[in-house]
Amino acid sequence: MAEGSDDIQALIALLGRLPGLGPRSARRIVLHLIRKRSGQMSQLAQLLDSVAVNSRECLTCGNITDRDECAICTDPARASGEICVVEDVADLWALERGHVFRGRYHVLGGTLSALDEIGPEDLGIPALVDRVTREGVSEVILALNATVDGQTTAHYIADALDSSGITVTGLAQGVPIGGELDYLDDGTISAALRARRKL
Amino acid sequence: MAEGSDDIQALIALLGRLPGLGPRSARRIVLHLIRKRSGQMSQLAQLLDSVAVNSRECLTCGNITDRDECAICTDPARASGEICVVEDVADLWALERGHVFRGRYHVLGGTLSALDEIGPEDLGIPALVDRVTREGVSEVILALNATVDGQTTAHYIADALDSSGITVTGLAQGVPIGGELDYLDDGTISAALRARRKL
Ligand SMILES: [Zn+2]
Ligand SMILES: [Zn+2]
Repeated sequence: MAEGSDDIQALIALLGRLPGLGPRSARRIVLHLIRKRSGQMSQLAQLLDSVAVNSRECLTCGNITDRDECAICTDPARASGEICVVEDVADLWALERGHVFRGRYHVLGGTLSALDEIGPEDLGIPALVDRVTREGVSEVILALNATVDGQTTAHYIADALDSSGITVTGLAQGVPIGGELDYLDDGTISAALRARRKL
Repeated sequence: MAEGSDDIQALIALLGRLPGLGPRSARRIVLHLIRKRSGQMSQLAQLLDSVAVNSRECLTCGNITDRDECAICTDPARASGEICVVEDVADLWALERGHVFRGRYHVLGGTLSALDEIGPEDLGIPALVDRVTREGVSEVILALNATVDGQTTAHYIADALDSSGITVTGLAQGVPIGGELDYLDDGTISAALRARRKL
């Protein structure tokens, strides 16, 4: 048992499997936390526990929240006439950091994929069509990744909304080919949103 | 509040300040943990809490442990006649991963440094001299980093033990100049330990 105690070893193993971390970075983090006798580790434990217990998906948009509906869906200052469709919550967060979009969101949770057998129902696209029709939305912005699957999904949704009379737009050029929203700087994503075009 | 809830934002901020992490990697980790509904996050919280509450320094060697004395100091199979002196616990762990050294350790907690005004008392070097004399140690291995401060500290300790009759050795060449033990692969560190030389 090289690393102090069974719990320390288990902690290093668990941290080392998180995205972007490995055994070495996990060891450095654990030693850092143990050395900091400031209670940072207990604080981290409490926050993790609270987030694990309280986090769920917003019933309306799929954003992560600690209530039935997220702070964006319940904010009366957010325009209910504009819905921005994203692949996942990381993309929603990236758009919010841009402080440009003042409407509401819809999180698909993925993209259509023949290879992975993910169809429209798996992504709740019929429910999205229902939602925008029911809510009297005037514009749906498809802020999907500029990947093949992302663009296939965007075209599928645009077709599904074709007869509704709702304006369907996509992000402007500015998102690089093959680029994923969550990796862009906040300025690029905001500029692409401002210059969005009708599909 | 872009990121779900106050707790999620606080968690991202806290994780983002850990060594090797930043805001982006912290966001990815938190989303990963929220998506994994397997209780991984609660498990992580419990381990962090347990390690925070139970971790302390071994009263004998300075290793991190959950008891008064660490598993190495209390292991009767470990040779008490050899003490390996390291700068910090990360180095002790690195040596243990090499599975070559079967003696015991002494963790200095740093190196002598004129610039940072760290003297022999700050590192407990008089206590180390007491310990090795009292325990009847036959060899002290100075496994310090191959940095200027590390080697200054090694020479200071070698001088302090000069009149004791105890054999003082250092790691063999093989540790690259300027290299830090914790960044070496386990094979290199083990080879350097096997080929250690008398100072
Ligand atoms: Zn919502
Ligand atoms: Zn010990």
